Amino acid sequence: MLPKGNFPEKVFLNGEIVSAEDAKISVFDRGFLFGDGIYEVMVQLENGIFYKKAHLDRLQDNLNKIGISYDVKNIDDALEPLLKASGLTEKSCLIYMQVTRGTAPRKHSYPKDVPASVMMYALPYVLPTINLKHIKAILEPDFRWHRCDIKSISLLGNIMANEAAMDHLADEAALVRDGMISEGSHTNIFFVKNGTVITHPADNHILNGITRMIVLELCQNLDISVIERPIAKDEIKHMDEAFFTGTTTQIASIAILGEHQFYENDNIGKTTKRLQKAFAKLRSMDTSQSKL
Amino acid sequence: MLPKGNFPEKVFLNGEIVSAEDAKISVFDRGFLFGDGIYEVMVQLENGIFYKKAHLDRLQDNLNKIGISYDVKNIDDALEPLLKASGLTEKSCLIYMQVTRGTAPRKHSYPKDVPASVMMYALPYVLPTINLKHIKAILEPDFRWHRCDIKSISLLGNIMANEAAMDHLADEAALVRDGMISEGSHTNIFFVKNGTVITHPADNHILNGITRMIVLELCQNLDISVIERPIAKDEIKHMDEAFFTGTTTQIASIAILGEHQFYENDNIGKTTKRLQKAFAKLRSMDTSQSKL
Repeated sequence: MLPKGNFPEKVFLNGEIVSAEDAKISVFDRGFLFGDGIYEVMVQLENGIFYKKAHLDRLQDNLNKIGISYDVKNIDDALEPLLKASGLTEKSCLIYMQVTRGTAPRKHSYPKDVPASVMMYALPYVLPTINLKHIKAILEPDFRWHRCDIKSISLLGNIMANEAAMDHLADEAALVRDGMISEGSHTNIFFVKNGTVITHPADNHILNGITRMIVLELCQNLDISVIERPIAKDEIKHMDEAFFTGTTTQIASIAILGEHQFYENDNIGKTTKRLQKAFAKLRSMDTSQSKL
Repeated sequence: MLPKGNFPEKVFLNGEIVSAEDAKISVFDRGFLFGDGIYEVMVQLENGIFYKKAHLDRLQDNLNKIGISYDVKNIDDALEPLLKASGLTEKSCLIYMQVTRGTAPRKHSYPKDVPASVMMYALPYVLPTINLKHIKAILEPDFRWHRCDIKSISLLGNIMANEAAMDHLADEAALVRDGMISEGSHTNIFFVKNGTVITHPADNHILNGITRMIVLELCQNLDISVIERPIAKDEIKHMDEAFFTGTTTQIASIAILGEHQFYENDNIGKTTKRLQKAFAKLRSMDTSQSKL
């Protein structure tokens, strides 16, 4: 039996839609034995699934990176029935999906000829037009692997960092690798200095978030200059603004990062505010087929 | 339905013994969603479970490291019924077990007050008295996380390295981090130079294997000097011998490592042979309560 908690009503599991209670996979699924899979999170807003194509393309990309043979077109086809069964057609919700390498006797190397396992669900979820939180974040050592560009479910490093943030009554942890800020435990991070937006380049040490890419596009549209370079921990105090981005985080202004306070009360920085407003406008558009 | 393959007959799952077919966990188990769990592999030999206490102590240690609240005494108690149900009482077998943080709505930070999930099984498995293989290993970049001391099921980095070895028709991959050999994809690695055994120190970049610790103890008993330091990739060609260790690997002589051939035909090095023989003798003892 499931414990109490905010579980979805229905789960899509390998072609079938079942109750959350009945959504069970074999203990020999490589997702369970090895964290051998890829995941995505999307949100459905007023005008459809926000950047659906961008998310599904990234999912396909990531599956290809680790050699899981699966066509995400199947997921696209299953979305409508899942939303319908969940009573969430055209309603605000969060959509979670993960594809694992499938079920096989436990052995490190990849099994051949077993079908991938696919699990997804939709959960009622309302995003504010603008995320008006004033984030408090701690700094944590980034001891994750060096393929953070892969959106893998082998997430122990991420969840340990996030738990450290919760332990410190903070909202998020910004990760520090070799003295440089890489990203958050489940977000990307941006800084602003003299009107220029600065963020870690999309290399193997960060996950290139869809919202990160949207923000870079918004900067271009708004004539905000961008530098993609890592910010050193010691530079934080010289920055004017900072914010996290993510699918459910959207653009969240950082008030406190480690020892440094960016602002007090509601004084979200000018550039962060501008980007938040521009981001909010995207919700009035159908972005489901937009490319990034 | 399970695909064809060498699955166990029975699985112990959260207090019950069920058929492998029926061994299913919730898709909301954090093992499946986040790779949030710890595992162990042991073997039962002629005289009981080889270094059982050492394995269970390490499991407890690792669970404590990531804050999963579970008493491995429960696993110890469940071993006998599992072996009996599997028809493997006092028979040679491999015992796999994993403990995950339990089932909860998906959220990075740890859920409170949910019981850990426990899964284990035993599989008929006969280990040779001495592993007489002549291992061919490739060198692969070690892009895993920096907490390899945690025996986590978030294993994507390890399985990618192992798959690379299989792709090259090799037996194992030795991992190279910052120019230094750390360990194998699921083994530890040792070198021998002028009769001295050299292996990576048990820091955060390797998993301190039970067999690794046994070998260090055997070296002491056999008056073989040991240096715990990483070997640089460039030093390989100057080494006399090399071997991998692991619970199922035991002590496996390396014939070829990357570009370097240590020996041809059956010419396993003198020190490796000595250690293999001493290791084989341990099987005639009951090590189930031995400390390391």
